[in-house]
Amino acid sequence: MTDIASLIRSQCEAAREASRSLAKLDRAQKDAALHQIAKRLREHAAEVLESNRKDVERARNIVSEAMLDRLKLDEGRLEGVAQAVERIAELDDPVGEVTSMRNRPNGLLVGRVRIPLGVIAMIYEARPNVTVDAAALCIKSGNAVVLRGGSEAAESNRTLGELVRRGLEDAGLPADAVQIVKPGEREATRAMLGMTGLIDLIIPRGGEGLIRFVTENARVPVIQHYKGVCHLFLDHGCDEEMAMRLVVDGKAVRTGVCNALECLLVHEGEAARLLPKLHALAERHGIELRACERSIAHLPSAKAATAEDFGQEFLAKVLAVRVVDDLDGALAHIARYGSGHTEAICTESHSHAQRFLREVDASCVLVNASTRFNDGGELGLGAEIGISTSKLHAYGPMGLESLTTTKWIVYGRGQTRG
Amino acid sequence: MTDIASLIRSQCEAAREASRSLAKLDRAQKDAALHQIAKRLREHAAEVLESNRKDVERARNIVSEAMLDRLKLDEGRLEGVAQAVERIAELDDPVGEVTSMRNRPNGLLVGRVRIPLGVIAMIYEARPNVTVDAAALCIKSGNAVVLRGGSEAAESNRTLGELVRRGLEDAGLPADAVQIVKPGEREATRAMLGMTGLIDLIIPRGGEGLIRFVTENARVPVIQHYKGVCHLFLDHGCDEEMAMRLVVDGKAVRTGVCNALECLLVHEGEAARLLPKLHALAERHGIELRACERSIAHLPSAKAATAEDFGQEFLAKVLAVRVVDDLDGALAHIARYGSGHTEAICTESHSHAQRFLREVDASCVLVNASTRFNDGGELGLGAEIGISTSKLHAYGPMGLESLTTTKWIVYGRGQTRG
Repeated sequence: MTDIASLIRSQCEAAREASRSLAKLDRAQKDAALHQIAKRLREHAAEVLESNRKDVERARNIVSEAMLDRLKLDEGRLEGVAQAVERIAELDDPVGEVTSMRNRPNGLLVGRVRIPLGVIAMIYEARPNVTVDAAALCIKSGNAVVLRGGSEAAESNRTLGELVRRGLEDAGLPADAVQIVKPGEREATRAMLGMTGLIDLIIPRGGEGLIRFVTENARVPVIQHYKGVCHLFLDHGCDEEMAMRLVVDGKAVRTGVCNALECLLVHEGEAARLLPKLHALAERHGIELRACERSIAHLPSAKAATAEDFGQEFLAKVLAVRVVDDLDGALAHIARYGSGHTEAICTESHSHAQRFLREVDASCVLVNASTRFNDGGELGLGAEIGISTSKLHAYGPMGLESLTTTKWIVYGRGQTRG
Repeated sequence: MTDIASLIRSQCEAAREASRSLAKLDRAQKDAALHQIAKRLREHAAEVLESNRKDVERARNIVSEAMLDRLKLDEGRLEGVAQAVERIAELDDPVGEVTSMRNRPNGLLVGRVRIPLGVIAMIYEARPNVTVDAAALCIKSGNAVVLRGGSEAAESNRTLGELVRRGLEDAGLPADAVQIVKPGEREATRAMLGMTGLIDLIIPRGGEGLIRFVTENARVPVIQHYKGVCHLFLDHGCDEEMAMRLVVDGKAVRTGVCNALECLLVHEGEAARLLPKLHALAERHGIELRACERSIAHLPSAKAATAEDFGQEFLAKVLAVRVVDDLDGALAHIARYGSGHTEAICTESHSHAQRFLREVDASCVLVNASTRFNDGGELGLGAEIGISTSKLHAYGPMGLESLTTTKWIVYGRGQTRG
């Protein structure tokens, strides 16, 4: 084993050891640790900002302006990070919840109780706030965590990680529950991916390349978050004003996010009514339209869509538009081009709403609501550690409960099976 | 791509296509198919037994007597297989269950609904009944299934698979929902393991070697079922008669099963009282004892345990015995040597029972009940497709619900996020 691999193994072993203590803690002990962490972050804000300044200086001229912005911390953002930790302390503790308890005919009382997964590993890119967020979510759910951030944020993550570890100690919890892996070589990542028996789940957050690399090389379970190619279907008879509102919210407010709208499907019976409205709206909001053959006549300034425009995650103010025959046409388009992330219908038809909800295979399916609602906070999870587009072991936004599993518990009075 | 790999890819594609229809079915349609399958099995029993006779003939002198017995079908066993299919038809359909539905402050109605995973792959060894069981469980839960049984059972599985497919057609369902992969080369298995996007979950059932091979080579999620090293801790003050009953049930009734007892831990304050009873019982039931230094004085005919005897899955009438200081000693032993499968305590102490349930990390933890109860049927699942010793995405016996996941559904009235 190389030095890097053996260092990472020893960090994972320390996390595994600490996870045993964490699993047994009461909620009050975990919440106390989270409050200590928030306190440390506030008291040592200057150190964090100084480390972050070094990262930003090094990254300037190397990374994009957008990435630089994600990397950068200031007092306001750091206060936001501390408050997020306090909000996680306020959330219910999922551990210990008895999810079922039933009597069997032989008198056994059989139930299931929620337990932590054990050790979670996160592999992520620029944002240093993920370091604290992920640590807080894992601590609250009784898990240890191994964090491997991007090399651009190395200094920030080192300082933040140290504060989190000291906050744990302040509350009498093992600092080893949070491990910061030195970023750098792919070898470090590869070593993490092979830690069967030490890591229970890996959550990569970043570009598609990172996620593919992790999926292809991991020996431990992985949560995938691939791209979001989100559709909105405007059904026959839908409310015109609502339809346009959902388009604007999906496409014109934030474009670089995975739950933004990428493709609008329009019932052919509504093309003449809705597409001129869409055209005006696109002009007003600076949205570039890529229109199919059946829609382009109604959209004079649109480009003709090519085959690649469908199934594309533009992450920009670009919207593909396609006229379909009916609900079945929309469902077929989504089955072919959707990414299992978020799909929405705008309709006044009850039966179409119910069919859409039932038949669309995506982590979140919405009726008469913006695709932008597929988000842990918006769906009521309080906080999220990621959005899964794979069906195991969670599908969609993952909150505290997604960081747990259940074990069976059985109360007997000497029963045997014979 | 080789011929084998491309044949398997086309089978997986056909399964994926069929899975889309299956996901939409109502319970009645799936149950009707299961009844048709049971009918086909009864009507064509002679064909199945003839295929099985060929398998048994070929396997004789090659495989062990125990394996030959597992391979063999007769009229009674085949009727049992048909009845198991009918029992699965009687179980509740997990698909479509709304597991939560709540109002958000903005008026969105947000919920989760249970959906099939999609395409399940099973890789298993001798028993041909697994072919029908697994197909029935997958159909009932709305999944397509790709089945790759052992080469010893090739003829039996081919015939059984054909009957299952014809049963599906009888009920108007796509036969392609059940795919029988020709057994043989490891290459076929390897090809299955790489079918990202076509297979959602692989469940290997067989020896540790098979499971390790699958885990190390899979690109798609895998459920692991490793060995069961099950302990029973006899606590200070436990009921003597109950303790002995649990030992007999765990060790002397069936020994080749994963929930059999492998190691008995005895509180030191009870060694003098309980070990002589254990000795008499072991003599009576022909159980070989492997005793630690602190217990051997009370067990005159026991062998001295070696280091390898702890953490060992004997799968035979052999029982390791160890005296521990107290509950903490038992918990430490289990944390070190347990396999996360099944652990039991025999106690009259309420606080010890609660600590044991909380602190032991195993898929099933029992108080005053036999380890043999860790079984889908016994825990009330109706039927099981396997027992997971990995925490994702299920931990312990897996029934119909473990073959599903949930998606989010949202009912709005035009809400936007802004």
